[in-house]
Amino acid sequence: MVVVMKLTARPEEIAAVQQRLEQAGFQAHFIHGVKRLVIGAVGDRAAINSLGLEALAGVERVVPIMKPYKLVSREVKGENSLIKVKDAVFGGGKLVVIAGPCAVESREQLLTAARRVRQAGAMVLRGGAFKPRTSPYSFRGLGKEGLQLLAEVARETGVATVSEVLDEASLEMALEYVDMVQVGARNMQNFRLLQAVGCCQKPVLLKRGFSATIDEWLMAAEYILSEGNEEVILCERGIRTFETATRNTLDLSAVSLVKELSHLPVIADPSHATGNRKLVSPMSRAAVAAGADGLIIEVHPDPAHALCDGPQSLSPDDFDLLMGELQGIAAAMGRDL
Amino acid sequence: MVVVMKLTARPEEIAAVQQRLEQAGFQAHFIHGVKRLVIGAVGDRAAINSLGLEALAGVERVVPIMKPYKLVSREVKGENSLIKVKDAVFGGGKLVVIAGPCAVESREQLLTAARRVRQAGAMVLRGGAFKPRTSPYSFRGLGKEGLQLLAEVARETGVATVSEVLDEASLEMALEYVDMVQVGARNMQNFRLLQAVGCCQKPVLLKRGFSATIDEWLMAAEYILSEGNEEVILCERGIRTFETATRNTLDLSAVSLVKELSHLPVIADPSHATGNRKLVSPMSRAAVAAGADGLIIEVHPDPAHALCDGPQSLSPDDFDLLMGELQGIAAAMGRDL
Amino acid sequence: MVVVMKLTARPEEIAAVQQRLEQAGFQAHFIHGVKRLVIGAVGDRAAINSLGLEALAGVERVVPIMKPYKLVSREVKGENSLIKVKDAVFGGGKLVVIAGPCAVESREQLLTAARRVRQAGAMVLRGGAFKPRTSPYSFRGLGKEGLQLLAEVARETGVATVSEVLDEASLEMALEYVDMVQVGARNMQNFRLLQAVGCCQKPVLLKRGFSATIDEWLMAAEYILSEGNEEVILCERGIRTFETATRNTLDLSAVSLVKELSHLPVIADPSHATGNRKLVSPMSRAAVAAGADGLIIEVHPDPAHALCDGPQSLSPDDFDLLMGELQGIAAAMGRDL
Amino acid sequence: MVVVMKLTARPEEIAAVQQRLEQAGFQAHFIHGVKRLVIGAVGDRAAINSLGLEALAGVERVVPIMKPYKLVSREVKGENSLIKVKDAVFGGGKLVVIAGPCAVESREQLLTAARRVRQAGAMVLRGGAFKPRTSPYSFRGLGKEGLQLLAEVARETGVATVSEVLDEASLEMALEYVDMVQVGARNMQNFRLLQAVGCCQKPVLLKRGFSATIDEWLMAAEYILSEGNEEVILCERGIRTFETATRNTLDLSAVSLVKELSHLPVIADPSHATGNRKLVSPMSRAAVAAGADGLIIEVHPDPAHALCDGPQSLSPDDFDLLMGELQGIAAAMGRDL
Repeated sequence: MVVVMKLTARPEEIAAVQQRLEQAGFQAHFIHGVKRLVIGAVGDRAAINSLGLEALAGVERVVPIMKPYKLVSREVKGENSLIKVKDAVFGGGKLVVIAGPCAVESREQLLTAARRVRQAGAMVLRGGAFKPRTSPYSFRGLGKEGLQLLAEVARETGVATVSEVLDEASLEMALEYVDMVQVGARNMQNFRLLQAVGCCQKPVLLKRGFSATIDEWLMAAEYILSEGNEEVILCERGIRTFETATRNTLDLSAVSLVKELSHLPVIADPSHATGNRKLVSPMSRAAVAAGADGLIIEVHPDPAHALCDGPQSLSPDDFDLLMGELQGIAAAMGRDL
Repeated sequence: MVVVMKLTARPEEIAAVQQRLEQAGFQAHFIHGVKRLVIGAVGDRAAINSLGLEALAGVERVVPIMKPYKLVSREVKGENSLIKVKDAVFGGGKLVVIAGPCAVESREQLLTAARRVRQAGAMVLRGGAFKPRTSPYSFRGLGKEGLQLLAEVARETGVATVSEVLDEASLEMALEYVDMVQVGARNMQNFRLLQAVGCCQKPVLLKRGFSATIDEWLMAAEYILSEGNEEVILCERGIRTFETATRNTLDLSAVSLVKELSHLPVIADPSHATGNRKLVSPMSRAAVAAGADGLIIEVHPDPAHALCDGPQSLSPDDFDLLMGELQGIAAAMGRDL
Repeated sequence: MVVVMKLTARPEEIAAVQQRLEQAGFQAHFIHGVKRLVIGAVGDRAAINSLGLEALAGVERVVPIMKPYKLVSREVKGENSLIKVKDAVFGGGKLVVIAGPCAVESREQLLTAARRVRQAGAMVLRGGAFKPRTSPYSFRGLGKEGLQLLAEVARETGVATVSEVLDEASLEMALEYVDMVQVGARNMQNFRLLQAVGCCQKPVLLKRGFSATIDEWLMAAEYILSEGNEEVILCERGIRTFETATRNTLDLSAVSLVKELSHLPVIADPSHATGNRKLVSPMSRAAVAAGADGLIIEVHPDPAHALCDGPQSLSPDDFDLLMGELQGIAAAMGRDL
Repeated sequence: MVVVMKLTARPEEIAAVQQRLEQAGFQAHFIHGVKRLVIGAVGDRAAINSLGLEALAGVERVVPIMKPYKLVSREVKGENSLIKVKDAVFGGGKLVVIAGPCAVESREQLLTAARRVRQAGAMVLRGGAFKPRTSPYSFRGLGKEGLQLLAEVARETGVATVSEVLDEASLEMALEYVDMVQVGARNMQNFRLLQAVGCCQKPVLLKRGFSATIDEWLMAAEYILSEGNEEVILCERGIRTFETATRNTLDLSAVSLVKELSHLPVIADPSHATGNRKLVSPMSRAAVAAGADGLIIEVHPDPAHALCDGPQSLSPDDFDLLMGELQGIAAAMGRDL
């Protein structure tokens, strides 16, 4: 880290900073600028936060140089992590598509969705049993029954399954029934939940919070890995910006950048990002072209009667078309679909 | 709500929209524009989300007219809600100042802080026992021991206390020891936690998520009220914007606007919003001038050695000065301090 | 538009709104909601802004229904506009790539760049002669000499040329020497400049302001068309968000959405959007997959010695590779490169 | 500045960076971190941009340490700049209020506004003659006739006047008729205009662009000062954020922060920031409490018939009330009104 001292910093203030650094095991290097003293501090990045340097007299600001994450970083592990969810492998040569309804509504709805998306080439079925909703008056999912339907449909069709968990109770239930658990955007910094999924034995789909920076997103993954679970798949799902013409702004440069910074697989969710069915296909193609390892797409047998997120859900026929379009892009990227 | 049909909408598509609206108990009013049909739908706002109108053929977009919240709205309750936390009353003529350290670190630290802030006029002591931290490698609080220290110090000094809860386990513990529980910014849409605090008998300090809209913030409060707990105090603590010169951007127009939209008390947190000790005083004054019902301020006996948020913590002497400055502003607003 | 009246609106206030609407040639339709009166107003969208309805007593808010633009809209012109710049045609089956240095620095630099990008398949050469710079102490371009070099190099190599203009004086000069003029992101709402380019006879490359909404961007194009110049090419170049890991956030959903809303060609600028050479290739591929009609890419013969934007400039060899990668994506999209 | 080298940087790459730095007159200090080399470079901040270090092989990133501005900085000039506009002095003990209509519409409208705001204590009259409008179909101001009316009304009432300029032509006209020229938010980075007002002899009111960082805003002021005009008054007018409940988000922490960073006076514009008449008073009070040197407020004799910005304009009676409210806050801040 670099500590920039104020123009007016007095010798005893400078000495106090140096002492604080050295007590914490850092080496202090003084750089006398044209007007100002800058102190380069060499040591363990993780210790910076507890130093409280910015609160010391004479300090103007502290500029961190190293990234705050370790385990998720490519510097720690150079090759791509391959994460297996039943027969699907994320992070390898083959793109993995997750598809299915926003919420599990009934056996028939789910089974129809599963059959159609499986047929079209999706390897994983999504379906929410516990739905976080902005309004307390909206449909909040079937709960345990929804999970049981997922397990049942998985047996019948052979798909793998993923479903969102909201807390330790829903996590415990989900672990019994599904192949991968999802931490949603609103819970990306629910650190208790991150610790809990970090202690479980199943892969975790970690959505980026809609106003999380890339560093915060990777730190959330770091929480999970630091508890012992290394099977994390990252999912970009749009960030909140000033633009209201789309629900969120899909940040595809984040996909490419995170592939450089981390060894974890990264997929994209164009359905939630855009909130607009017509944009799902172009943004799916773009995500693959940007280097995503897969996609998660909302597909409902009858979008106009969906209990949740109908406007952004594809019909099974739309999904067939999309999978066709993706073939060419995947091939151009040297990947299978 | 208003349903805007596409230019190309066919009669049978229009009929389908009308049918869907009428089945859901809405009345449909047709407005034939110069080029386009617009349908005004009269009925219960809460039912809109489940209609899925945007997924119907021929529909361009749906424009909600009414606000999505009810119980928190001034239209439901015209007069200010007064919320009592021990001897402090939020929402009345007297401004309430909450002050104390970011995290409870030790008995001595907390007791010194409590005595000094109490002396200066603060009615409520803050102190975190469970700290949500971006990095898994940072100090996460003393847990139950921190709560016990809060209770002990409250007995000795007479202050009321508030502390953050992260999940049902920490909530259950906190209810035993403190006078008010806080739902932090990162948990503002942790709907499980909202439901849980909605079922408890103590006042709740609900911070605005750093990228929550005002509507989402009020909907989070609606969750709590809808479970039966009407004692919610709202706290503006800065929103995430493109500006990086301050940690967040304190949105004081939100304070004034929410006072118009809702009967709940609203306070401001200039410490977290700015992340900069020098800005705490001007933003405290500004918040009071904007009509806030109180403030929450980080005060640490020794900011340079704080385990958390030192750069934004005031020393007890700084806090004395601030309280002096606020006297004049409070008086100009016709309020006591 | 829809006028939402306050709960407390009195009959004479309602009558005043009706009168104001009718005087302005609108028809007022009353929709009596459960609690509240809503007035649907049918008439010319362009007249809304001068009505001042929100300032009338009893009015809660005004919700516009129609889009504010006309001439740029697909509703006015269904088929794609094809815009010819020398031998390049934007908006048709063939993708057009614009490439070249941020700033014209010398004859040799420009000629080398032009030859290499032309060889690789770029049809248009970019090169700034008038550079808008955040700091008054940075290099601001060669001015007229830069334009003359562009013209010279165009004659020698056969490329078309585009260069940014900042005001009427630079526009007048540029019209003599280049094939297309560019209005930069910072000038997207410089309405004087929009009017001026609207009166000229050359195509205009209109960059999206980095915090302009899609509606504002299309309104800026509307300014140009409304003055008589229909040859506008839109360019998405990233928007300002909270994320600082990339310079801006390339909003590719805007590319797809604008292709639906407007008949004008849309291209993308991954160089300025990301500010990071490594992200230029993935974002170029993604833009093409999202449906962009072309790209504008910074290429410098020696990026490490560029006077401007070196970190995001590709070398000619990098550019050759990129053009190779784009072949496959273009083919998958059914387009030539 | 600090140059962070890649983990993989080779000796010859390090040598190349050192050479580039030394050629440019910088001294290079090597700090060997635990894993990585960091180079501290001491020299002239203004020269950094032309170094192109980030484009060199082996460089991971460049972290600037010093602020990019000089002339506007408190480090160059410690005491507050006092800027005189006729009888009003910005930056001293007395708060200066600018008030008047968004646009000059007629002699009568302007004269009524001027008399009323003058009576209430405003020292400067605002009134737009050249209006930048998002839509080409909106009222764009009376032009020269508007300026003449301002001059006439100023003679009759004794107020000082300010009006916005859009380009060199309107600037030239305005300099004849008004006491201060305004550069609007959309033109904050219209560098040609900044240079032009930098060469004139009248004070300049420089609005912050609605998505300009504080650094960019101060750099815009630096442009003006670097041309020789030191009479710049800064105006915070709200920034663009994700929140849509207010037109923009008034960033009052920017007011306090800029007062620390710069010696220039800073005022606030709550009318444009909020776009909502009801929020103008609370945000005016808050701005004064945050340390603003003045305010600019839209006042129209008949807001419901204003040709522009009616919803946010105060009536003269509202303005009287506001000025009354401000007395107490100003007094609490130790300032006159």
